[in-house]
Amino acid sequence: MNTFGQRLRVTTFGESHGAGIGCVIDGMPAGLEIDLAFLDSMMQRRSPGRNAFSTQRKESDKVEILSGVFEGQSTGASIALWVQNTAQKSHDYDNIKEIFRPGHADFTYFYKYGIRDYRGGGRSSARESAARVAAGAIAQMLLREFGIVIKSGISAIGDIEASEYDFAFALQSEIYALDYRIEEAQKALIQKVKNQHNSIGGVAIICVEHLPIGLGEPLYHKLDGALAESLMGLNAVKAVEIGDGILASRALGSDNNDQMNCSGFKSNHSGGILGGISNGEPLVVKVHFKPTPSIFLPQETLDIHQQEKICHIKGRHDPCVAIRGSVVAEAMVSLALADMLLLNTTSKLSHLKKIYPCL
Amino acid sequence: MNTFGQRLRVTTFGESHGAGIGCVIDGMPAGLEIDLAFLDSMMQRRSPGRNAFSTQRKESDKVEILSGVFEGQSTGASIALWVQNTAQKSHDYDNIKEIFRPGHADFTYFYKYGIRDYRGGGRSSARESAARVAAGAIAQMLLREFGIVIKSGISAIGDIEASEYDFAFALQSEIYALDYRIEEAQKALIQKVKNQHNSIGGVAIICVEHLPIGLGEPLYHKLDGALAESLMGLNAVKAVEIGDGILASRALGSDNNDQMNCSGFKSNHSGGILGGISNGEPLVVKVHFKPTPSIFLPQETLDIHQQEKICHIKGRHDPCVAIRGSVVAEAMVSLALADMLLLNTTSKLSHLKKIYPCL
Amino acid sequence: MNTFGQRLRVTTFGESHGAGIGCVIDGMPAGLEIDLAFLDSMMQRRSPGRNAFSTQRKESDKVEILSGVFEGQSTGASIALWVQNTAQKSHDYDNIKEIFRPGHADFTYFYKYGIRDYRGGGRSSARESAARVAAGAIAQMLLREFGIVIKSGISAIGDIEASEYDFAFALQSEIYALDYRIEEAQKALIQKVKNQHNSIGGVAIICVEHLPIGLGEPLYHKLDGALAESLMGLNAVKAVEIGDGILASRALGSDNNDQMNCSGFKSNHSGGILGGISNGEPLVVKVHFKPTPSIFLPQETLDIHQQEKICHIKGRHDPCVAIRGSVVAEAMVSLALADMLLLNTTSKLSHLKKIYPCL
Amino acid sequence: MNTFGQRLRVTTFGESHGAGIGCVIDGMPAGLEIDLAFLDSMMQRRSPGRNAFSTQRKESDKVEILSGVFEGQSTGASIALWVQNTAQKSHDYDNIKEIFRPGHADFTYFYKYGIRDYRGGGRSSARESAARVAAGAIAQMLLREFGIVIKSGISAIGDIEASEYDFAFALQSEIYALDYRIEEAQKALIQKVKNQHNSIGGVAIICVEHLPIGLGEPLYHKLDGALAESLMGLNAVKAVEIGDGILASRALGSDNNDQMNCSGFKSNHSGGILGGISNGEPLVVKVHFKPTPSIFLPQETLDIHQQEKICHIKGRHDPCVAIRGSVVAEAMVSLALADMLLLNTTSKLSHLKKIYPCL
Repeated sequence: MNTFGQRLRVTTFGESHGAGIGCVIDGMPAGLEIDLAFLDSMMQRRSPGRNAFSTQRKESDKVEILSGVFEGQSTGASIALWVQNTAQKSHDYDNIKEIFRPGHADFTYFYKYGIRDYRGGGRSSARESAARVAAGAIAQMLLREFGIVIKSGISAIGDIEASEYDFAFALQSEIYALDYRIEEAQKALIQKVKNQHNSIGGVAIICVEHLPIGLGEPLYHKLDGALAESLMGLNAVKAVEIGDGILASRALGSDNNDQMNCSGFKSNHSGGILGGISNGEPLVVKVHFKPTPSIFLPQETLDIHQQEKICHIKGRHDPCVAIRGSVVAEAMVSLALADMLLLNTTSKLSHLKKIYPCL
Repeated sequence: MNTFGQRLRVTTFGESHGAGIGCVIDGMPAGLEIDLAFLDSMMQRRSPGRNAFSTQRKESDKVEILSGVFEGQSTGASIALWVQNTAQKSHDYDNIKEIFRPGHADFTYFYKYGIRDYRGGGRSSARESAARVAAGAIAQMLLREFGIVIKSGISAIGDIEASEYDFAFALQSEIYALDYRIEEAQKALIQKVKNQHNSIGGVAIICVEHLPIGLGEPLYHKLDGALAESLMGLNAVKAVEIGDGILASRALGSDNNDQMNCSGFKSNHSGGILGGISNGEPLVVKVHFKPTPSIFLPQETLDIHQQEKICHIKGRHDPCVAIRGSVVAEAMVSLALADMLLLNTTSKLSHLKKIYPCL
Repeated sequence: MNTFGQRLRVTTFGESHGAGIGCVIDGMPAGLEIDLAFLDSMMQRRSPGRNAFSTQRKESDKVEILSGVFEGQSTGASIALWVQNTAQKSHDYDNIKEIFRPGHADFTYFYKYGIRDYRGGGRSSARESAARVAAGAIAQMLLREFGIVIKSGISAIGDIEASEYDFAFALQSEIYALDYRIEEAQKALIQKVKNQHNSIGGVAIICVEHLPIGLGEPLYHKLDGALAESLMGLNAVKAVEIGDGILASRALGSDNNDQMNCSGFKSNHSGGILGGISNGEPLVVKVHFKPTPSIFLPQETLDIHQQEKICHIKGRHDPCVAIRGSVVAEAMVSLALADMLLLNTTSKLSHLKKIYPCL
Repeated sequence: MNTFGQRLRVTTFGESHGAGIGCVIDGMPAGLEIDLAFLDSMMQRRSPGRNAFSTQRKESDKVEILSGVFEGQSTGASIALWVQNTAQKSHDYDNIKEIFRPGHADFTYFYKYGIRDYRGGGRSSARESAARVAAGAIAQMLLREFGIVIKSGISAIGDIEASEYDFAFALQSEIYALDYRIEEAQKALIQKVKNQHNSIGGVAIICVEHLPIGLGEPLYHKLDGALAESLMGLNAVKAVEIGDGILASRALGSDNNDQMNCSGFKSNHSGGILGGISNGEPLVVKVHFKPTPSIFLPQETLDIHQQEKICHIKGRHDPCVAIRGSVVAEAMVSLALADMLLLNTTSKLSHLKKIYPCL
């Protein structure tokens, strides 16, 4: 199950310390101009080693297009993307070859598959998200053709939480902070936990504007359901909220319902989704990341022979995985929305009559 | 997209005020004993009209098995289930035929499909969940063969929140309350909002014990991702949490990681999932429901001609949709897990060698 | 795997001697007028008991629409269809309860599933094709909106083979014969084998006109591949040909290639498909049916205890399954093409720009 | 739709004159030893430029494994394979840049996608089959673990047809001829048409032994249906037969039914499939290839501006595509069977009870 999507399908491959990371995008309509500069900029936003707030593993994360693009445009064929690994340090993992790192997938991969690529977590590594971001960038190119705008940023680091969201500021911030008034406090918190060889959780917000009404396929591929899957499936994500999210569970119907008048919806508690379908209002999604499980403190654990061990993690790790994770979340939202855009083309007969000649 | 699941696939059909609600379950292994009493008991837990805390629409919700079962056992063929509608009062909807009820799918269905079955929300009605519960009961029969136990209940009504979970108590409670010490307060709150012609949100917990290690298909059909999709896709759900959920975003790595020793995991912050795969610990999922959008207070809205209208809702509605929703959530978790059980059969060659003769 | 199709998905259920046969059609665009008379006429063409050349089991095969249609139109919701069984005679099967009928699926179902509904073959019965024809009729309603015309008939019974195809004549013929000059000889052959308690094979042709160019999804859901699957999957089908079919394997490239000039293609050896995509020429498919395996002669076989038995078949069976099979084949082609019509909506960006507003 | 399979899914990418050809295999159970020598031998059997009877384009067709294999074994992660193109001569196609070659996909790709990679047919080239063969070799490694044996060869070139099948001889023959007595005549025919700048059709046989009983998923993913799709979807294939195939349509039931006694089936007219499920007898499939459409004779055609042109094809082409096509057909059968092997693991509860601990 290494494929995401129904009509726009992305299949990824590659491991943290293998030859590289790649993906195949299938179902992209022919005739899309491929914007290489945009692809590169998305990759840079996710890439490691850029500042003190991310892992020091430096990867150029240059995307090579292996197929599906001819003279700058998608051809309708499958688009393969490839990102070579260049900065593996597999020896960092020699001492944990047989050990299950707490909070990691080591334990479950070993028992599910009976074999484990221990080098940097192998397939379970967040490095795989390079492929998600590359594919998400291509998906976003499709969305931009229809004026759809996707924005993301960090609302909370630990319990330091934004009260206002400025997505333009986030783009410039080293930690993608949405609220400039607390950015320094958030940075200071990250620096503190890093100095303590620890890590900290965080929250990302993704916001999408100018979505057409009608995206989402009831009843088992609703827009909110698809977003929840794509985001909860990211490494370290433990909760997903749409619109008012958990606050909705404490609200009265009279407060939570978004009433309408001639100017449109009077509020957006729903976060842009009604009955699993986009209603044209801004889509608002909140993603909660746990702290990076790789910390440099000693931890109790077991090895593959079920012996007790103390786990000492080496290597290079993000003190707060939410930061780079927010870019991956944005990519997943892009993929989910592009898929929904394609799926919705057949919602009504009148759509088909615009495409095919009829009697 | 009226199908849920990959290997155990459930396709549902039917509308609130049509002939009935049904589903087809495909992929169930042959040889499963069908426990009709259990099926009926699950249906009764979801069924409306049982007490003051749910809608007064009374439906017997008797499930008819149309196919796939022979001499009490599944045959490997598709299993069709059918629940006739008996208590439709379509006239309740005459006055809102052209009106978009706030908080409902009316608006998005109309624009997505260009046609709308206005009677009780048609396909978008929570009545469809009868099919989910019926299918979920069959799935749970499969899970029980392997000792897997699924429990659910209500942790919060509005801001009255449980501090302890007693799933046995919940089964007896009219509102499926998990904490007997606050059950009366929760009931009183529901009664109060009901008297005010309003509604209130709530939170359900689903807990699963004795799951085998290894369920979940990385990277795009992880267990947490699949659960999030199945639950966020339920009517009125606005947030889903796994394990510590949103609290994980405020935690330190050293506190959030579940360390291990010879006795197993020392804590369960992860909620039983590591790297998207079950780790054998109890699975813990939290589901946040918004308040029922159908309230009896006048609300501003538009009609299909984009004219401003005041919406006056009639009919019979749940004051707190989380209560019956918790049973539906339990059913969806059952379906997702049964699917994962089937998917995992091919995770390693040694599994296949137990099934097929080999050289 | 009881679902056919990708975007237009049909899930069927039901057994020969169960309550009935049904299906759920998912993905039909909203706004399609449902032509009940056409639906009924397709059902009648497949229905048993109409004349001496088919089984004497008489079924009214009346289709009930359980969902998905509101005020005569598809709503975008799943459409459930239901055909009650009325003429079961399960006692006909008492004597073969534990016996594997030669040429039937009894043997393989028993070993695959470990349990078998022996009454009339249960799920493996050709009676299931009632659901295919019902769904195919709905699909054909969609195709007719775009002027696509589907025709079928019988070209050969045993070795009596048509040299000309008259699809209008076939519609009137009791055996759907395409060539009026040999119809009587074909009928006589069927009557002869029937008198000998035997059965005979046959060949059906399906021809589709006015298909838009572009249907078919390379590389693994090509139009020819999809047609081959849908037809080879029919009971009793042992070979499928497209265009010149097996003759192409004996041809020279210079003879087989369809050259073009200003008037279009100069020939149609390809049968309307190039590279797995429709080229606008008539689609021509040939389907070879084996003789009905149910014959009334004694046959050697085994029972479920691996004991040798003589099989004596009772009941009511078609002497030549190809005849009614041709209608089922037409239905499957309709379903495959309707699915391709939906899939092709996203082949190029310019299609999407006709549907969605863009910058 | 560049993915083949349900549980063992292969997604391919790449064009004839792009960077290379590749695929991602998803769903392979962990723990399979990867036999590189076997992989290479399958690739060599398909590879071009080996003798006078295939195209003179020389490609080393060396497969690089990019992911999913660790220490010689599959890990359960997606396996990416990559074959670099080394011998492109894109200039051969300059003169047909705007011309639709008769018998090729040029015409349909252009109208479906609005854009066309004209270099060697781009995505529609048979060069893509390198990925199919690489994936098929991996699938065959899985099948071999269970003693399943797959064999293939050429039964007919034009109308020179084998009367006996010797699969061991075929492996040694330059044209994979199954019947040594006619090999020279078949070679002479190919040489003759080649000298005439023409091409010729042919027929391949694939035979599988020691299949377990029970493979095939009724009713819409039957074994015969899946094989038909996988084979009819190959470039140039125009007909597929199972077992007696077209001859079955001329047979009597009494002759066509395979009766059984204590020693098993007394005949194998069915070709090893009953009711869409393997019955343990040898699987026999016949695949009919049309002549290579690339011939060196002048042909009438149109260009993309709908002007009449004479098409003069240059380049390096197989005089009989069936020969190398037979290896691709064998690969597709391997993929289809491996998929069925995985799908069948959940056919009955007793299978699951061998894998999971139960109460």
